Amino acid sequence: MPSAESVLFMFGLCAMVAEAMTAALAAGRRKMDWVGVALLGAITALGGGSLRDVLLGHYPLSWVERPYLLGLTGCAALLTIALARVVHRFRLLFLVLDAIGLVVFSILGCDVAIGLNEPIVIVVVAGMITGCAGGVLRDVLCNDVPLLFRSELYASVSVVTSAIYVCGHVLGIAHTIVTLIAFVIGLTFRLLAIRFKWEMPKFVYDRDVH
Amino acid sequence: MPSAESVLFMFGLCAMVAEAMTAALAAGRRKMDWVGVALLGAITALGGGSLRDVLLGHYPLSWVERPYLLGLTGCAALLTIALARVVHRFRLLFLVLDAIGLVVFSILGCDVAIGLNEPIVIVVVAGMITGCAGGVLRDVLCNDVPLLFRSELYASVSVVTSAIYVCGHVLGIAHTIVTLIAFVIGLTFRLLAIRFKWEMPKFVYDRDVH
Amino acid sequence: MPSAESVLFMFGLCAMVAEAMTAALAAGRRKMDWVGVALLGAITALGGGSLRDVLLGHYPLSWVERPYLLGLTGCAALLTIALARVVHRFRLLFLVLDAIGLVVFSILGCDVAIGLNEPIVIVVVAGMITGCAGGVLRDVLCNDVPLLFRSELYASVSVVTSAIYVCGHVLGIAHTIVTLIAFVIGLTFRLLAIRFKWEMPKFVYDRDVH
Repeated sequence: MPSAESVLFMFGLCAMVAEAMTAALAAGRRKMDWVGVALLGAITALGGGSLRDVLLGHYPLSWVERPYLLGLTGCAALLTIALARVVHRFRLLFLVLDAIGLVVFSILGCDVAIGLNEPIVIVVVAGMITGCAGGVLRDVLCNDVPLLFRSELYASVSVVTSAIYVCGHVLGIAHTIVTLIAFVIGLTFRLLAIRFKWEMPKFVYDRDVH
Repeated sequence: MPSAESVLFMFGLCAMVAEAMTAALAAGRRKMDWVGVALLGAITALGGGSLRDVLLGHYPLSWVERPYLLGLTGCAALLTIALARVVHRFRLLFLVLDAIGLVVFSILGCDVAIGLNEPIVIVVVAGMITGCAGGVLRDVLCNDVPLLFRSELYASVSVVTSAIYVCGHVLGIAHTIVTLIAFVIGLTFRLLAIRFKWEMPKFVYDRDVH
Repeated sequence: MPSAESVLFMFGLCAMVAEAMTAALAAGRRKMDWVGVALLGAITALGGGSLRDVLLGHYPLSWVERPYLLGLTGCAALLTIALARVVHRFRLLFLVLDAIGLVVFSILGCDVAIGLNEPIVIVVVAGMITGCAGGVLRDVLCNDVPLLFRSELYASVSVVTSAIYVCGHVLGIAHTIVTLIAFVIGLTFRLLAIRFKWEMPKFVYDRDVH
């Protein structure tokens, strides 16, 4: 039976591919060229982990250590161009893969911070940055207000997943079990949020006070 | 009598709260949800110091060392939602707190660079980044051209404050006195700039040369 | 006869000046004030190298070690304001200087990564980040979708230059010769791309799948 680490790692690779492919669609909406598509795919898929590592001073970054990640994500983005005509049929698959990615990235981000002996709050923040920051980078480079700040329970799912994972870790529960619990609850939460369009309340302010 | 350090530290906390609250208003103008409001508040209040530390290789970052700063700034941003109806009455208070924040952040940023034995120019730049970069991050994430680049003597105040502080430090003047002088001159400069709408000249170029 | 290093270094300074000046024109199109012009010039000219160093954990950054680079690039940007009325006459000069900058920055970026014993792929990526990321920062701060992602063989030129340079290095060809070859081929490629308006194919996607 494969270990929780190797399963997570495989899921992480699938998630990177999914993030690169959705980033490629965003690039296509902005009429970027092929180089832009590949770059935006790699930046989106690897940006969250890179930002976490830079903020925590954790070197080398994952893609510097394993350069094939650049090829994997760049190629996945380029492949999306070829699949553009049929890709809308896989909308559901993308949503599920993206949800898996969010949860898996969060758990992997927690692991890095736990390995650095960071306090619990920072472990959860590291999980959230890993899960969410790639999409923020994508939106900034596409000249949008980040979706993360505007809608959907995206950051919340990441925080809940990370919090469950780190609590299980602190309580000394077996790693495989706590990983599984965090994964299942996080993924369920995210899919329910998509299915029932759960949203955070919005803050609307239109006075001109600065 | 409290030391200059502890007074500066208290002022620094107040300034973070003020920056997080003004960022929350910016988030409200973009109709962000509550998670977005809290994130934008924390990023704006802590982003300047974080960027300085990443550029100087100064680890751990302040919020990694003191995670309560994340809670403080996030909660201040969320509190702003509750206060949204009355917050415009405190416009003057916000402006003064924001000015205090600019000056205090600049001084604290200089202190970090002095502790790293950086050359004088870099100390001033570290002060400016600490004082100003949070607002640039806020504007980029709100999809605006940064206010810092467009109007008001904001960066200038930070540079003047930092330059006075570092010169006093180099000349060996007592720390409490030089801190006080830099604080008073910087704050006065900023408040006069707001009161009399001092502005830098603008550079307007509309030929299409690239 | 001067060494390849010192020639490259001089070319690098010229390239920084050119990048700062084109950034100043972009700032003028956004009606930034003088402080914004100087800041955007320095950030554009020094941002690529800074991002590379932060991602590779290579400290101190170049402008921290040599603070005069901040003065050089900021002053070049301010000088552009004075020259604004005549600057369009030098359009060709700017294009050539910018092309030289792209190629020289790429080679210098490779050198840093080679010095850190990074794998070949990372050396090429370091060259590309050094050559291209400054312009991305400029466009994000000007609230544009980065030009790099949309048009022209800009990133491609950087990758080709870097790949030639690192291959020559690995094959043990004399440093001066491999530098010269990479420089000439890269520059020729870029100038031909401008002259004949070579473009990457675009990816246009307008279904609303997310």
